Amino acid sequence: MDQENKTTPIIGIVMGSKSDWPVMQAAAAILDEFGVPYEAKVVSAHRTPDLLFSYAATARQRGLSAIIAGAGGAAHLPGMLAAKTTVPVLGVPVPSKYMKGMDSLLSIVQMPKGIPVATFAIGEAGAANAALFAISMLSAGHPGYIASAAEQLATYRQQQQEMVMEMSLEPENVE
Amino acid sequence: MDQENKTTPIIGIVMGSKSDWPVMQAAAAILDEFGVPYEAKVVSAHRTPDLLFSYAATARQRGLSAIIAGAGGAAHLPGMLAAKTTVPVLGVPVPSKYMKGMDSLLSIVQMPKGIPVATFAIGEAGAANAALFAISMLSAGHPGYIASAAEQLATYRQQQQEMVMEMSLEPENVE
Amino acid sequence: MDQENKTTPIIGIVMGSKSDWPVMQAAAAILDEFGVPYEAKVVSAHRTPDLLFSYAATARQRGLSAIIAGAGGAAHLPGMLAAKTTVPVLGVPVPSKYMKGMDSLLSIVQMPKGIPVATFAIGEAGAANAALFAISMLSAGHPGYIASAAEQLATYRQQQQEMVMEMSLEPENVE
Amino acid sequence: MDQENKTTPIIGIVMGSKSDWPVMQAAAAILDEFGVPYEAKVVSAHRTPDLLFSYAATARQRGLSAIIAGAGGAAHLPGMLAAKTTVPVLGVPVPSKYMKGMDSLLSIVQMPKGIPVATFAIGEAGAANAALFAISMLSAGHPGYIASAAEQLATYRQQQQEMVMEMSLEPENVE
Amino acid sequence: MDQENKTTPIIGIVMGSKSDWPVMQAAAAILDEFGVPYEAKVVSAHRTPDLLFSYAATARQRGLSAIIAGAGGAAHLPGMLAAKTTVPVLGVPVPSKYMKGMDSLLSIVQMPKGIPVATFAIGEAGAANAALFAISMLSAGHPGYIASAAEQLATYRQQQQEMVMEMSLEPENVE
Amino acid sequence: MDQENKTTPIIGIVMGSKSDWPVMQAAAAILDEFGVPYEAKVVSAHRTPDLLFSYAATARQRGLSAIIAGAGGAAHLPGMLAAKTTVPVLGVPVPSKYMKGMDSLLSIVQMPKGIPVATFAIGEAGAANAALFAISMLSAGHPGYIASAAEQLATYRQQQQEMVMEMSLEPENVE
Amino acid sequence: MDQENKTTPIIGIVMGSKSDWPVMQAAAAILDEFGVPYEAKVVSAHRTPDLLFSYAATARQRGLSAIIAGAGGAAHLPGMLAAKTTVPVLGVPVPSKYMKGMDSLLSIVQMPKGIPVATFAIGEAGAANAALFAISMLSAGHPGYIASAAEQLATYRQQQQEMVMEMSLEPENVE
Amino acid sequence: MDQENKTTPIIGIVMGSKSDWPVMQAAAAILDEFGVPYEAKVVSAHRTPDLLFSYAATARQRGLSAIIAGAGGAAHLPGMLAAKTTVPVLGVPVPSKYMKGMDSLLSIVQMPKGIPVATFAIGEAGAANAALFAISMLSAGHPGYIASAAEQLATYRQQQQEMVMEMSLEPENVE
Repeated sequence: MDQENKTTPIIGIVMGSKSDWPVMQAAAAILDEFGVPYEAKVVSAHRTPDLLFSYAATARQRGLSAIIAGAGGAAHLPGMLAAKTTVPVLGVPVPSKYMKGMDSLLSIVQMPKGIPVATFAIGEAGAANAALFAISMLSAGHPGYIASAAEQLATYRQQQQEMVMEMSLEPENVE
Repeated sequence: MDQENKTTPIIGIVMGSKSDWPVMQAAAAILDEFGVPYEAKVVSAHRTPDLLFSYAATARQRGLSAIIAGAGGAAHLPGMLAAKTTVPVLGVPVPSKYMKGMDSLLSIVQMPKGIPVATFAIGEAGAANAALFAISMLSAGHPGYIASAAEQLATYRQQQQEMVMEMSLEPENVE
Repeated sequence: MDQENKTTPIIGIVMGSKSDWPVMQAAAAILDEFGVPYEAKVVSAHRTPDLLFSYAATARQRGLSAIIAGAGGAAHLPGMLAAKTTVPVLGVPVPSKYMKGMDSLLSIVQMPKGIPVATFAIGEAGAANAALFAISMLSAGHPGYIASAAEQLATYRQQQQEMVMEMSLEPENVE
Repeated sequence: MDQENKTTPIIGIVMGSKSDWPVMQAAAAILDEFGVPYEAKVVSAHRTPDLLFSYAATARQRGLSAIIAGAGGAAHLPGMLAAKTTVPVLGVPVPSKYMKGMDSLLSIVQMPKGIPVATFAIGEAGAANAALFAISMLSAGHPGYIASAAEQLATYRQQQQEMVMEMSLEPENVE
Repeated sequence: MDQENKTTPIIGIVMGSKSDWPVMQAAAAILDEFGVPYEAKVVSAHRTPDLLFSYAATARQRGLSAIIAGAGGAAHLPGMLAAKTTVPVLGVPVPSKYMKGMDSLLSIVQMPKGIPVATFAIGEAGAANAALFAISMLSAGHPGYIASAAEQLATYRQQQQEMVMEMSLEPENVE
Repeated sequence: MDQENKTTPIIGIVMGSKSDWPVMQAAAAILDEFGVPYEAKVVSAHRTPDLLFSYAATARQRGLSAIIAGAGGAAHLPGMLAAKTTVPVLGVPVPSKYMKGMDSLLSIVQMPKGIPVATFAIGEAGAANAALFAISMLSAGHPGYIASAAEQLATYRQQQQEMVMEMSLEPENVE
Repeated sequence: MDQENKTTPIIGIVMGSKSDWPVMQAAAAILDEFGVPYEAKVVSAHRTPDLLFSYAATARQRGLSAIIAGAGGAAHLPGMLAAKTTVPVLGVPVPSKYMKGMDSLLSIVQMPKGIPVATFAIGEAGAANAALFAISMLSAGHPGYIASAAEQLATYRQQQQEMVMEMSLEPENVE
Repeated sequence: MDQENKTTPIIGIVMGSKSDWPVMQAAAAILDEFGVPYEAKVVSAHRTPDLLFSYAATARQRGLSAIIAGAGGAAHLPGMLAAKTTVPVLGVPVPSKYMKGMDSLLSIVQMPKGIPVATFAIGEAGAANAALFAISMLSAGHPGYIASAAEQLATYRQQQQEMVMEMSLEPENVE
């Protein structure tokens, strides 16, 4: 399994910092248990934004069926990945030092209409559940939609983007 | 589409009360826009627990690829559906009268390890995003796993259940 | 007392996980002190939903006068027991790892109209008080109502269920 | 029923202020529906503490099987009633002007070990559920305990009181 | 000073439980430092309600100029003391096990109009500040009001009480 | 009374903004009812800091027995007044637009050891209670302490100040 | 001024959605009042991530001295702008529908070490203050640092990025 | 560097108490790393209000380009510094004992319109980021505004002050 694990990942586990690993390895443990190949990477929304963008932008063609993203505090990683791919993104709020993950939870779950992030519980339980959910998704693809759904989502995103672009005007036009 | 919509749903939208519909129809609107057939039902975790159980237990064989469940307050509907099916459950916290959905959010997202519910934002935005996420899942099924993942999850659940059953003892044994 | 304790319990103590026992044994200690026979079991709303349902459904005929249910996080155990029996259910919010029981409290106390759960303080104090409250209930039965109250509640539940069933329709009817 | 309603109440509904009635009448409506005789009174913990004490102290001999107490803000009414009687007290957090009942909920539910208050949801749903719970209690009395439980609780309270009295010393002894 | 300390206290320090002493002794330390005679007692609102009432009711004639009351959780002690005396009551929220005093703070500070409790910070800082505030009050008495203010407050309380008493009616009158 | 009201105030009501008056006039109404002369002023901690300082610094010699200060949001007014006078300061959290006074409450009540602010409930009830508390203080002065307490507090403040001044060093000394 | 306003902006006001303009125009009003040229644009972190990146990446060379960014809910806009530029970013939490901006505030202010966002109050007051702060910054540049500070920050960012890149490894290396 | 560090500081780090230093030294460490001269002082808003005022009032002429102020609980230090200077003030919420900095955060960030404080994350991360932000500001000064901006802000403050002064009237005028 380990062998396949490293060669053809279909789930990506990413985290904002190496210190998130003790939480996120609960996701890896479930994937190992189910024999699902995955990759685990540190990708920081704030410190390596370009890496984050290219990771997300290439996720579908690289064959990822889901991305499990853990982050703490102003946890932007899951949401920004979701902004750059239509591969499903699963967010795990990592407990923060003083607010114990309440900030992480709200930063991940309260996404605006248009860009969903599936959010799970704070901490290890959430990481494990994100992995279990990803596995349940592997069997959820629908023959009549596998091809078209991704395309349709891409179109939808494009439309959203255009709507915002049209609004990107000087203040007198905004009013 | 409307035609097919009523005959072969692949997404189930359920809500704890008819009063949740103004929020949950944001999910229906997205599915309509994408032409994805769905069904919408009122199923109360607390007032019709047996209906909830049979709805969840038959979801997979009825061909549902995902269940979008909205509930408010002590929002048990998404979690109890997830307890009875391995079809992915997407939870939408419906804003409650006095706590504005903070209670709904925590009741849905803080699921224990083993039974995941993918949680989205409080209210209409969350309902719309749950639908968009469900669509992204339709294209996420992986040929090599569609058959086995559901089976593996069923085994995992069985094991969890057995572990709890073994602990279901009189107090002197619990200690 | 220990003898009777094991043979004819009139109070049920249930908890979602073995790890809740350090909190819930404060309830058992009070019942021991008062010589009230009880049983203590691990019943998980999420991992053993069927066990939960049959436990609740048989509670009255098995002679239980009250069920004390402790759970943490998205604490669905007390509410789902209450959904399946008219025996009074007393909920104890077990402190959760990161949110310290605030999630447990809201998930237990914010029940919708129709299915009550009597809720007590977070942690050991709440568990002890649930037991004291159960004892006070043992003397609260009213001769003129013992027979009829349970029946009336069953009718009320039936009506609630029917109201929901009538609403369980396709979306065009929901609107 | 209405007739009996006014003559031999077995449930007491009390509230801290007349302005709590719109919430608390949801409890009265349920009791009316079930034909359970009750009384409804305004008793303020802070403005009429002596009335509160005598109301609680005479509750058992006056034949009350339960007291449903609603209060908002620093909601001391349910807890102080419970301190003066072993008749079960059911607390309903009335939504407060600025904090929407979060203060009321915590003030009612977080009772210390020894003096339980069964707490229900914030607002009308909680009031209705308290009434439903009170009715379920009417059938929960246990023949073998009706006589002794109240007595045992009285003894327990007496012991608690004595323990505190012994500690009521000048600071050098407290240390 | 210690001598006078025990014989003619002008400040009363009371706490709901002996376990509050590590927090409340910060108040005693300040009073010792300023040479202000005080008494320190354990008085539980819930376990010794009669003691609480008689303590408060006799406070003015016993010569207390202020009562500093510390309590945790559903912290009713300061508010109930204030309900039974017009001697100024200063409340100190004692940190609770799981909610860290947020429950204590709201239970103390959110008093209804008519019965004030002066509230200070959670924990030791609040206890010390309550003592400093009590000392500042010792010099705040105004010659023209010392006699009349207590009398006026007693009349005001009496009026409040009568207003509530008039509302203490059967439900048909409440409406 | 109205006459005296304007000429020799013994209570100062101050507020951070004219928009706080609808809340703070509940304090004025109580003082009017009791015939206690007061003054009401707008003094902004942030926009008129020098006015705030001089108001506080001259309060005692101008004969004020108490200052009732209302403020919202990052409500610094009560705390900064208390920093500049030993006249008792009573803080009223004015409800803020989005946080409904939770920010105001914490900003006022969580004062550090050494500088107390007596805090009351959010909004009108708190304003009225601050006035009632101020009146109770008018009768709380103790003959043996009126003269010395103010002096002792001034010394205590001076010591605190000196302790801070000694720490006001370059970083290498701080360490 | 209006003329210059449109031609050579030195402050950028960006917001996640057109619906944020009623809040953000409080910033524009201050800049107008002070005669500081600015531009106002709708740039969505989630719907137009590439636009966000190019806006931030070109900010310094386009001559912007500060970017004021308003966003609500999972408010990623300010933090992601800050991740792509060393021009100071000022974040304004826009009040969200159900959580009133508490989610927006935490999502903006709780940034991890390395990428600062200066955060202001929820809503209009925060928008106005962000503008006033930006103006105060215009006079804060230090001759000896204007040239080098930007360069030094770029180097610091580069180092942070490299540290993360080195950690971007398969799981066995992460451990 | 250390040499210059002590002679010509351009950034001031101030904190309310010596116990804040473990948090605030994260700011000092960044400034050291970048070679930016600074001073670090303990200045208490509550215990040394005059020192706070003179520190702020002389900041600009002493050549400070920014003040980084850390405080916990009812954290008034940053806001009161900002009230007395137009030099940019950066606030760092220091974690408090029981509320973990939530009180500190709200007390600092929720400033009223007119007096901005740029707020950063709770604890060490916030302190480090405040320093990084201060450095980014050093390069943000704009040639055309350096001279005039400070002057304009001074005028603005003066106008605000006058508006408040005009409102500082007896109650009949306030209404």
